[in-house]
Amino acid sequence: MKEQHQPHIVVIGAGFGGIRAARKLSKLNVQVTLIDRHNYHLFQPLLYQVSTATLSIDDIAYPIRAMIKKQKNILFRMGEVTNIDFAAKTLLVDNNEISYDYLIIAPGGTTNFFGMDSIEKNSFGLKTLDEAVTLRNHILHKFELASYEKDSVKRHSLLTFIVVGGGPTGVESAGALSELIYLVMAKEYPTLNFKEVRIVLVEASDKVLAAMPEELQEATIEKLIRKHVEVRLCVQVTDYDGQRLTLKSGEIIPTHTVIWAAGIKAASLAATLTGNHDSAGRIIVNEYLQLPDHPEVFAIGDAVHFQQDSRPLPMIAPVAIQQAETACENIANLLSQKDLHKFTYKDVGSMATIGRNAAVVNMGSLKLSGFLAWTMWLFVHILRLVDFRNRFVVFTKWVWEYFFYERLVRIITRQ
Amino acid sequence: MKEQHQPHIVVIGAGFGGIRAARKLSKLNVQVTLIDRHNYHLFQPLLYQVSTATLSIDDIAYPIRAMIKKQKNILFRMGEVTNIDFAAKTLLVDNNEISYDYLIIAPGGTTNFFGMDSIEKNSFGLKTLDEAVTLRNHILHKFELASYEKDSVKRHSLLTFIVVGGGPTGVESAGALSELIYLVMAKEYPTLNFKEVRIVLVEASDKVLAAMPEELQEATIEKLIRKHVEVRLCVQVTDYDGQRLTLKSGEIIPTHTVIWAAGIKAASLAATLTGNHDSAGRIIVNEYLQLPDHPEVFAIGDAVHFQQDSRPLPMIAPVAIQQAETACENIANLLSQKDLHKFTYKDVGSMATIGRNAAVVNMGSLKLSGFLAWTMWLFVHILRLVDFRNRFVVFTKWVWEYFFYERLVRIITRQ
Repeated sequence: MKEQHQPHIVVIGAGFGGIRAARKLSKLNVQVTLIDRHNYHLFQPLLYQVSTATLSIDDIAYPIRAMIKKQKNILFRMGEVTNIDFAAKTLLVDNNEISYDYLIIAPGGTTNFFGMDSIEKNSFGLKTLDEAVTLRNHILHKFELASYEKDSVKRHSLLTFIVVGGGPTGVESAGALSELIYLVMAKEYPTLNFKEVRIVLVEASDKVLAAMPEELQEATIEKLIRKHVEVRLCVQVTDYDGQRLTLKSGEIIPTHTVIWAAGIKAASLAATLTGNHDSAGRIIVNEYLQLPDHPEVFAIGDAVHFQQDSRPLPMIAPVAIQQAETACENIANLLSQKDLHKFTYKDVGSMATIGRNAAVVNMGSLKLSGFLAWTMWLFVHILRLVDFRNRFVVFTKWVWEYFFYERLVRIITRQ
Repeated sequence: MKEQHQPHIVVIGAGFGGIRAARKLSKLNVQVTLIDRHNYHLFQPLLYQVSTATLSIDDIAYPIRAMIKKQKNILFRMGEVTNIDFAAKTLLVDNNEISYDYLIIAPGGTTNFFGMDSIEKNSFGLKTLDEAVTLRNHILHKFELASYEKDSVKRHSLLTFIVVGGGPTGVESAGALSELIYLVMAKEYPTLNFKEVRIVLVEASDKVLAAMPEELQEATIEKLIRKHVEVRLCVQVTDYDGQRLTLKSGEIIPTHTVIWAAGIKAASLAATLTGNHDSAGRIIVNEYLQLPDHPEVFAIGDAVHFQQDSRPLPMIAPVAIQQAETACENIANLLSQKDLHKFTYKDVGSMATIGRNAAVVNMGSLKLSGFLAWTMWLFVHILRLVDFRNRFVVFTKWVWEYFFYERLVRIITRQ
């Protein structure tokens, strides 16, 4: 397959940025190798719907080989990249050496526990499919245990759910968890008093959804409170032993479940590469998205620190996708010896859903909350899913849940 | 909830028999407790479609609490029954004691390795959801490893798949595996030569689908061969170390994957109870399905040995469901001091699918193979799924696979 004279471009990571890059590069007269630790592309924005039992894994995870089977010049390799030798232009995938002419580094992000080991060990992250399934199993199992727990102190602790982080992931998780518990499970545990359930959203700053305008932040908090979520702002978490969550104020909350959505950092591959990094381990690239000392190496997405308007860009999918476009154009430009393009991010706005009929949307001058925002959120997310079958099945499940107040992925696996 | 004068009936197991029993009992003026190790009811006949990446877990697993939420006199308890004290009429669920007035034991079956430890340790059973997901991950992962394995001996071993057992589970697994590999994956591994793939169905007796008439057995073998499955009859397996499968003849087949569908036995709970058992650990019950020494205790389903026409009934869902009906009628009869009914199994026939357009159906005088049998198989299985949403989603996935030769649950989780 691989012809000798074709440049070989390696793309590390098959997230939003990596997949876009591999597909765009495949239109050039090059050979592309796409590497990922997993054999699937993950639609991370809906991961919290796996952990709250609305969607199953294959609704939001798509086999990478199925995505690239029409692009005959892309080879997929499942494996972990453990080292990159920029001088030799080689990298190690599970101890096998692969050489490249050009490289795009797009390993994505991982949960940032800010060095708090006890929290890393005992709380649940929400960045990977396995984490989401583990969290789903855990939540459902706590209700089963609570259903026959006679000690009220233990029962309260089993029924207390803390979500740390008031960003989109935290807000959406708290809202979805509330609906799972109060709209679905409340009908099915006759021995439980659901007044004993506590869902707390904890945020260190004085606002939720910091990127949103103030009116939408307030609408979000109001909706969360109506869904029986306690919103605690200006509260920092310092320790969690699996039973007791300690706040900076000294307050202790007994709980079996802490969901950590309070930060992300660059994947460990990015953080360990030679070169300059920011405090989140992100690679600092030049205005063309190249590593300053290695013009044949580009880095994109969550693993990259890129300043615009004196602030680093957020770690979100639209940034990764736009950077993939520019990185690929610049590789084409290098191949044809043209000038490179500088990267500029075009803000596409943001949205978050708090639950049924409730979302907030901020796009340019459009600021919406409530039912209309929720409808927009649904359509945008359905359209962004990978293929028609997934869209169709997810749509069916959402419609089903909406009308029948039912979540059928409440399956506890792997005990 | 529980009134003092209501008899308390405990049902152990929420398989086909246990669920039917709990629902039927709920119509009496009694309190029912349904106990299962899992929080879901599993539609086992389609388990092989999870292991071969057509269906996801929630398509064939349904939350038990959702199934019984309208029956207010059924309480569900998730847990493992570790002991039953027939004299005291109590049982232990995860070390909590529960007392009963009547008991229905329906713990189901488990894989029978016939005491061959090396096979139990290294091969894959197909009786639980976790086993099916583990097998799916394993098969997909072997293809990823093979895709860059340069040593042809190792590659052949990675690409050799042995299914042991020529009953419905073995036949359906081999057929589904063949279609996964030759119709779906063959398009997506450009570096692999699919002529190197081997699927072998091994059966100790001289026939497959022993309960079927001879003409359908022959049709089954013909279809399997057309699907590139080697069918090896009169072959016994004696040892498997994870790398090399040893046959009784001394032949050794290097393989990374042995799927064991060669036998089932009663669940361990049944086998360890006091009383008489057969060689598969099944409880021997009287003609009313009672334990001979304990008339208030009934046992049904795979865990029971019941002779009819001088042969024990097979371990299949229709037997369990019909026994549940009779056991419940007999409990009602005991409560109203009427005579008990003797159990008689009415044969509903059997069917198995080998793949697209290919199935065999044996129902009374109706003996069918080919497209029409396949259509019948599809409709019967769709109708038996628990609720409309599951039917709809499974139907969508089957239609999708049929027309697009695609299996989208090819997701490797938990590495």
